[in-house]
Amino acid sequence: MLVHAIGIDIGGTKIAGALVSESGEIVRQDRVPTPAGDQDAIVAAIVEMITGLWKGEEVAGAGVAAPGFIDAAQSTVYYTPNIPWRNEPLRDRLASMLDLDITVDNDANAAGWAEFRFGAGRNVRDMTMLTIGTGVGGAIVTGGSLFRGGFGTGAEIGHMRVVPDGLPCGCGARGCIEQYGSGRALLRFANEIADVEGIGLALAAARRENDGLLNGHIVGEFIAAGDPGALYALQQLGRWVGQACASLSAVLDPEMFVIGGGVSVAGDLLLDPIRESYLQHLPARGYHPEPQFVIAELVNDAGVVGAADLARVHARTR
Amino acid sequence: MLVHAIGIDIGGTKIAGALVSESGEIVRQDRVPTPAGDQDAIVAAIVEMITGLWKGEEVAGAGVAAPGFIDAAQSTVYYTPNIPWRNEPLRDRLASMLDLDITVDNDANAAGWAEFRFGAGRNVRDMTMLTIGTGVGGAIVTGGSLFRGGFGTGAEIGHMRVVPDGLPCGCGARGCIEQYGSGRALLRFANEIADVEGIGLALAAARRENDGLLNGHIVGEFIAAGDPGALYALQQLGRWVGQACASLSAVLDPEMFVIGGGVSVAGDLLLDPIRESYLQHLPARGYHPEPQFVIAELVNDAGVVGAADLARVHARTR
Repeated sequence: MLVHAIGIDIGGTKIAGALVSESGEIVRQDRVPTPAGDQDAIVAAIVEMITGLWKGEEVAGAGVAAPGFIDAAQSTVYYTPNIPWRNEPLRDRLASMLDLDITVDNDANAAGWAEFRFGAGRNVRDMTMLTIGTGVGGAIVTGGSLFRGGFGTGAEIGHMRVVPDGLPCGCGARGCIEQYGSGRALLRFANEIADVEGIGLALAAARRENDGLLNGHIVGEFIAAGDPGALYALQQLGRWVGQACASLSAVLDPEMFVIGGGVSVAGDLLLDPIRESYLQHLPARGYHPEPQFVIAELVNDAGVVGAADLARVHARTR
Repeated sequence: MLVHAIGIDIGGTKIAGALVSESGEIVRQDRVPTPAGDQDAIVAAIVEMITGLWKGEEVAGAGVAAPGFIDAAQSTVYYTPNIPWRNEPLRDRLASMLDLDITVDNDANAAGWAEFRFGAGRNVRDMTMLTIGTGVGGAIVTGGSLFRGGFGTGAEIGHMRVVPDGLPCGCGARGCIEQYGSGRALLRFANEIADVEGIGLALAAARRENDGLLNGHIVGEFIAAGDPGALYALQQLGRWVGQACASLSAVLDPEMFVIGGGVSVAGDLLLDPIRESYLQHLPARGYHPEPQFVIAELVNDAGVVGAADLARVHARTR
């Protein structure tokens, strides 16, 4: 018998939830604003959302995806940036309020798992995903299983260093790929190009018209319209991502790189410079097979769909 | 009933083999020079060695560790540097000559597996090993299994890039950690120090006495004797390795880093700068657990012991 599962994705601004079928389809969904500063209110909102989605259905379990570091037992939130959780026993707290198998996972891991099960990676066994949004998230699937690392905090691909003594990163280190391959980096590149003459002229004009600020929406529209300055900025980002993927191949050797996140709507305009730069920097090129590069398919729903499916895996193996 | 297994380690200069017990002890061993340029002679030597070690014993299988790239099926050698193998079906070739379960693995993977099963990593489930010899080798164990990557060529940690447009590497790329954290890099650092006054004076004198060349033996003796120039060179190497481990933690998050290879005989003199530099560069330090750093225990026998144990794992799961 097919059984649904519940996925919850806790974001900085909203909590999304869904009842998800065994084939990854969303049966029912819900969404509320995140009561950001208030731990108890967040827990109450999750419990209420799970209860609502659960009503009248048999479910295998509920998976909760949160930003930040989750322990290897998928139980405790070590730390999460926008919510004041430090070593929070989130699973036990939720389990004490719900008669349901609960599991907690990192949100990028959940999104990557969804791509592996139902999206771009459904035909491979080993895949590495880079989520290029405001920052750079990561997920690793190996041999058909989600790779979490020894303490549960692995696959933080955005914090692999690509430049010694490079730009300072929010993580406290310097030179992380997040500073060169994220949406925030894309804006920095676009601003640098707008500061010079030539291909930056249209970006500079748009910036002036927008109170001196470029944003992701403007740069995205310029990319879609083929503006050479915006495309140059995107290519800069792509080249950094490709170089990071070359290092990741040496270590992880995935069959496929899946590129997700808001910036990935650029499609081949992003993939082309990634691939080109990847091949240029790949160690021992020609002496081993090379991976595919593809765009993620489940962009908006990946978190809840992945969290629900991870809950199903957890319920099965517990 | 306990059953032995056979491990073979193909090096550039010698082929080593051993009959290994289930608890990782060497029961019997053998060693011959590698007939380096001659594929058929190498295969004949392996078959003869396995036959000799096998004689009168019941064995679970034979594992062959080779340098270079092995496919995910542990069967085909894609490429190996000193032996003219390209897409060589080594397992089938050996299996056609021996009535025994055969498996092929990368030599650094075999050595790492031995450390995990019987050496420094025996009490953890997730470990990353860096083998600091002439180059930098790598092995990854995750959740108690050897990590090979999607095509079998993962864990090539020596080719993670640490410097954009850095020193050219034998792999064709630039800036690989192998160029900054290997025994060869240690010699380069020692020569640079010998070229300047001050702490380099003793190294410079030793170099003059040795026809203008420093080698690993000389630098090793100077390190053991506490020469400040040689220690400075070792610390330079250690700082690079520590920085690479900080990036590896973001991606792999091991419970333990095991440092092996010839340079690891320096012990704490090597571990101290690695640890210090690691902590200085660790992303999100203080927000997640930190791994141990330890020296490998099985230095010389790791290859054959690991290959034998991987053969046992293979025979069990086939």
